[in-house]
Amino acid sequence: MSTFKTVRGMKDFLPEEARMMRLIEEKARGIAELYGYKEILTPVVESHALLAAKAGEEVRSRMFVFKDLGGRDVALRPEFTASVARLVATSLRTEPKPLRLFSFGSIYRYDEPQKGRYREFWQSNYELIGSGRPEADAEILMLTCSLMEAAGLKNYVFKIGHVGVLRGIFSQEGLEEREQNAAMQLMDKKEYDDALRMVKDAGASRECVNILQKLVKLKGNKVFQIAEKMKELVKAYEKAVSAVENLSEILRLIEKSGCKMDVVVDAGFARGLEYYTGFIFEPYVSGIDIALGGGGRYDRLIELFGGEPMPAVGVAHGIDRMMLAMQTQKAKLEAGGKAVIVIPVKEELKSEALKISQMLREADVPAEVEVMGRRVTAALEDADRRKMDYAIIIGEKELKENAVAIRNLAKREQKVVRIEKIVETIKGQKV
Amino acid sequence: MSTFKTVRGMKDFLPEEARMMRLIEEKARGIAELYGYKEILTPVVESHALLAAKAGEEVRSRMFVFKDLGGRDVALRPEFTASVARLVATSLRTEPKPLRLFSFGSIYRYDEPQKGRYREFWQSNYELIGSGRPEADAEILMLTCSLMEAAGLKNYVFKIGHVGVLRGIFSQEGLEEREQNAAMQLMDKKEYDDALRMVKDAGASRECVNILQKLVKLKGNKVFQIAEKMKELVKAYEKAVSAVENLSEILRLIEKSGCKMDVVVDAGFARGLEYYTGFIFEPYVSGIDIALGGGGRYDRLIELFGGEPMPAVGVAHGIDRMMLAMQTQKAKLEAGGKAVIVIPVKEELKSEALKISQMLREADVPAEVEVMGRRVTAALEDADRRKMDYAIIIGEKELKENAVAIRNLAKREQKVVRIEKIVETIKGQKV
Repeated sequence: MSTFKTVRGMKDFLPEEARMMRLIEEKARGIAELYGYKEILTPVVESHALLAAKAGEEVRSRMFVFKDLGGRDVALRPEFTASVARLVATSLRTEPKPLRLFSFGSIYRYDEPQKGRYREFWQSNYELIGSGRPEADAEILMLTCSLMEAAGLKNYVFKIGHVGVLRGIFSQEGLEEREQNAAMQLMDKKEYDDALRMVKDAGASRECVNILQKLVKLKGNKVFQIAEKMKELVKAYEKAVSAVENLSEILRLIEKSGCKMDVVVDAGFARGLEYYTGFIFEPYVSGIDIALGGGGRYDRLIELFGGEPMPAVGVAHGIDRMMLAMQTQKAKLEAGGKAVIVIPVKEELKSEALKISQMLREADVPAEVEVMGRRVTAALEDADRRKMDYAIIIGEKELKENAVAIRNLAKREQKVVRIEKIVETIKGQKV
Repeated sequence: MSTFKTVRGMKDFLPEEARMMRLIEEKARGIAELYGYKEILTPVVESHALLAAKAGEEVRSRMFVFKDLGGRDVALRPEFTASVARLVATSLRTEPKPLRLFSFGSIYRYDEPQKGRYREFWQSNYELIGSGRPEADAEILMLTCSLMEAAGLKNYVFKIGHVGVLRGIFSQEGLEEREQNAAMQLMDKKEYDDALRMVKDAGASRECVNILQKLVKLKGNKVFQIAEKMKELVKAYEKAVSAVENLSEILRLIEKSGCKMDVVVDAGFARGLEYYTGFIFEPYVSGIDIALGGGGRYDRLIELFGGEPMPAVGVAHGIDRMMLAMQTQKAKLEAGGKAVIVIPVKEELKSEALKISQMLREADVPAEVEVMGRRVTAALEDADRRKMDYAIIIGEKELKENAVAIRNLAKREQKVVRIEKIVETIKGQKV
């Protein structure tokens, strides 16, 4: 039989990468705990109707869709928010608000594979449900900042915008939601000329197109100055003005929060998902073009899914991309303890090797047993190559006196230690 | 829009269950570390050909199979071993042996949903590759035992058998592999009469059928006695005799290993997956009919997948079932720290609330901020209801003196504390 491969776009994590992934997961879960987010687990397989409802055309066309054996139209989740909103509209419907929910898991999109982008990828996801206030938006930004810090990333920048500004203009100009969504999609892809043409064709005034033309160019890190300019530009559109004010309030809160956050406001910024209603953002690091995550406010999704009208804000972080950024920036996460190999000098002593390894593990010392039946010298060479810390060599002579030999592999020193002293010897590094 | 539901057979984990699942995952990962197993991550979506190759008819017919957007025949993994074997035959081909690999993740089978059985479920999986020795088999049993202990489970029993006994008889009787597999499948379902009829129809001798009839009834916890009887029964079949000897050697090793393990040997025991070649086992706890996991030796799978000929042994644990067992046995896992809510007494102080919450988190104290804009009394009532530990109340008067009020919610006591003393006050529980 010929060799099997991973399916195109799918990826294996070998031990080093898997360790890194799990460490970031641990950090993400730790941040959830620090900010009071409770973890939930939703299935990878959801109904197609749920996942397609407000995903946006771009995401919708790239879902893994199929029928299960019962003929149900299902898909692999392309993001977490629809599943979380489903839960909030059903099982968690009567839970007091605010509800802070954390998810971590794999996500599926049939995108063209490239560096840092696979068809199966990992996200940490935080949703704060029930508050429409700017301090909730600020919290979502702050915890993203905390995750970047925890991952050891430097020089990250938050790109921030507000969907309410463009939607405020569009709706006052009489654009239907479908037309608004299409224009936002084009803007998300930075195809501003096409977007403006579309808006014009949909019946927007010449004045409006002029304003939009100027608006999408407003961008920069002097955030309050940019916000003032935005407000001045959109002054004829009441809802757009409120949106800019809301954005300014969020910016003021994070400025004073104690989080060191570099922020760029981008008035022409849109995101691919249709459900956003308020502020939106993406974190970036230098050297990597793609966003490390994204989030924003979605005040109408839960209602749309059959729940009570309910403001909400959330963020998802792309773990694979964060790993790529960490590799690029050579960020390091700590892990690992001492490694011990237990080697019996002859066949008859192998049950003794199992027993001593078990004693070590019960004392929280990681221990491997020689299971290849190799001679001591060969097993020691292998342990050296793998940079293990200690070898415990079980010989007949020592065993008669209830003892073993412990070898410090780095120092190439060896001494005989009574069995009941093995754990303290290894833990105390006295060898 | 009407309310969306989970797809039939799929399950949400609400916070309490999710916490339990993640705690078991943490334990499983800790055991991997203690025994020297490196974690790898393989995709949920694999090629159908890979997953179907040696899964066994039962599992094969219940896979989630579909075509991806590129027309590839893919499926959701119904177990981990095929993916791990693929890796060992390809990316990890040149790694020195033994190779100890750990996986944790979700698994998919279209089974009829029932208590503790869903179509998406979670497994921890350990594979020890490159050793054909009984100490490797014993290690897989020992680590399963360690996981049961870590989960706080009591009164678990290991059911142990050996595929080599039946296969040794079948092959000497001239049964083809396909016929052997079909007979093993029937035995796995405990349909022994049908299995024996099938074996007879396939051309086995009357003497053989007599032996099998007695063999499948041999079962009990006097394991060495059972093994002796098995050996006596199958003495005419050379390979079956070796298999019994191998089984006895494994039993001897675990008896002396220091693991307290209750074992039942079952000579008629078979498992649904076709790839097993040697000892097989399943852990059970009283009160629950279904196995909490399963594993065994599979010495030909990696070769079949295009790798070098390579002995291997492994185990998968059903996390959902372990959770069910823990609930049944009221086993408890420890977790959680102190919970703090930070409440500003008025709107203008909310940026101060964000700042103080951030200070707490930086000192590893979980902190929530009031984001509903509620009055202090309402926010305190909510914190009481949620059994939080402390409230930090930020008032104008105290703030002028660089202080806040800290309220111990259980004791209903409150005192004013300077901001720089908040962390030590909460950590030292001095309130």
